[in-house]
Amino acid sequence: MKKISDYSAQMEKYVREVNLPGGVLSTLYQPISYALASGGKRLRPSLLLMAADAFGGKAADAFSPAAGIEVFHNFTLLHDDVMDNSDTRRGRPSVFAKWGLNTAILSGDTMLTLATQLISNVEDKLLRPVLDAFNAMAIRVYEGQRLDMDFETSDSVTLDDYIRMIMDKTGSLIGASAKIGALIGGASEKDAEKMYEYGMMLGVAFQIQDDWLDVFGDSTTFGKPIGGDINNNKKSYLVLKGYASGGPEAEALREAMSLPAGDTKVKVVTRIYEKMNLSAICRQEIASYSAKALAALKSTSLSDDDKAAFRAVVEKLTGRKK
Amino acid sequence: MKKISDYSAQMEKYVREVNLPGGVLSTLYQPISYALASGGKRLRPSLLLMAADAFGGKAADAFSPAAGIEVFHNFTLLHDDVMDNSDTRRGRPSVFAKWGLNTAILSGDTMLTLATQLISNVEDKLLRPVLDAFNAMAIRVYEGQRLDMDFETSDSVTLDDYIRMIMDKTGSLIGASAKIGALIGGASEKDAEKMYEYGMMLGVAFQIQDDWLDVFGDSTTFGKPIGGDINNNKKSYLVLKGYASGGPEAEALREAMSLPAGDTKVKVVTRIYEKMNLSAICRQEIASYSAKALAALKSTSLSDDDKAAFRAVVEKLTGRKK
Repeated sequence: MKKISDYSAQMEKYVREVNLPGGVLSTLYQPISYALASGGKRLRPSLLLMAADAFGGKAADAFSPAAGIEVFHNFTLLHDDVMDNSDTRRGRPSVFAKWGLNTAILSGDTMLTLATQLISNVEDKLLRPVLDAFNAMAIRVYEGQRLDMDFETSDSVTLDDYIRMIMDKTGSLIGASAKIGALIGGASEKDAEKMYEYGMMLGVAFQIQDDWLDVFGDSTTFGKPIGGDINNNKKSYLVLKGYASGGPEAEALREAMSLPAGDTKVKVVTRIYEKMNLSAICRQEIASYSAKALAALKSTSLSDDDKAAFRAVVEKLTGRKK
Repeated sequence: MKKISDYSAQMEKYVREVNLPGGVLSTLYQPISYALASGGKRLRPSLLLMAADAFGGKAADAFSPAAGIEVFHNFTLLHDDVMDNSDTRRGRPSVFAKWGLNTAILSGDTMLTLATQLISNVEDKLLRPVLDAFNAMAIRVYEGQRLDMDFETSDSVTLDDYIRMIMDKTGSLIGASAKIGALIGGASEKDAEKMYEYGMMLGVAFQIQDDWLDVFGDSTTFGKPIGGDINNNKKSYLVLKGYASGGPEAEALREAMSLPAGDTKVKVVTRIYEKMNLSAICRQEIASYSAKALAALKSTSLSDDDKAAFRAVVEKLTGRKK
């Protein structure tokens, strides 16, 4: 059976070999190489390759568009780091920290056009559907980022608002990766849409899992300190679900969230989450979105073997990993 | 005879009517509407429309790609204002000044994707050539901006470096506008390339003219205070040409450029430029690039009447306007 990790190894190699000019323009391109060499799971391009392969295409035809997806993803991270004033990314200085604001902006802009060039490297008859899917996805990602930023200063964010935001910001990119791969593989429009749905729902499950891991995960496997969302007052699934429950515990949660950042705050908030049984409720929600992803997958015309491979991705990404 | 101003009036209307979502996402889209409503000459999209028309196309087929060029241009201005820390743009607060860094970055990113969507709104058979021309131009614009930024801190910028920079940053966008319009109008590949050359050389002449106006122009018609380049130590055509001449006057110029910003500095530097006869030398250079634009135009298969219309654009943009 195909495994996503087989594709990610291929993708890693391809992305690191993307050819960029040097010389006098290394001030523009070196930060891009740096950003692209920073690793990560290469989930999105690997999913694209796997979908192209599963629907009967050749992986070689999908490498360039897959790299386009990865360059786009890293462009968003690069500009997000500026907007969040983040000094680190995957354990290294961010481009923003290393080269400053102007380079982060301009090299990021360049990455968006590079991504569009890479994604356009498909057969003529696929150019419009692939490009349209890519651009529509990009717009949703910006809209999601905007909502995410606006949520920071809003007291009236609902769970529905939150789900919409993560569909835009996280789900759409994973969905578009699966869809574009399917299109390149020769999938029917119906199958391509089902794969979009699969990736979208997987992305939502994955993001809620990320919120869960922030509180109930293990910092060594999670890769980030536990309680970061609590200390940053992030409108996570957990806190919004807690507020939505109403009653005295919701009131206690609001009070605890107004504590100054620190270990005490994390402990107090986590205690309230436990009282509210939010870990189990959150796991249920993850399972529910995973099930939606699997239902979309099931309705495609893929072989049982290929369906098993995509099912394994859902299990891998939404397993508890505590 | 066609006139560029006829097209700019049409373009003005179309650009202001670009349909953007509102509601909860107005934090993303309102700054874009604001940027697009800030006027300007609409030179680039008007040139695109005029080229489409001249080569036998319908203006209606070119409105969307022309708007794409204008949205792209305004995206670069929006991010440039962040990089230059500029508070004003065309006499109004810049998006950066009005809404802050994060909005300027994210609404700018959105404009780049919107521009790509608008430019892609062409017949299927034109999609790849138009998109390729657009993306290649975008990369050149970023490279030009990077060079421009790097020049600020370099002591060894040559006139050749400068010409390369303005070809990338200014010429390529005007060239691509003329070329894409020609392609949409049904021009041969050869004619489309000639129109690119026409726009490229026009752009270079236009930029050198801008440098000349900064010193020898009239602040009321120029729209900016005279001597801004001198006070900002910009590596303009004039100062680089002055340095390149060598001798004691070049040395005096270097000394004058190290004076603190102010009216005295502008006066002293201008006096040296006059001694070096740089006004006339600069006008010759503008004439030389204008002549290259006209030679490219002459070699196209356009009618004499259409050639006259494009010649009038060169005359309008590179006239002394003192």
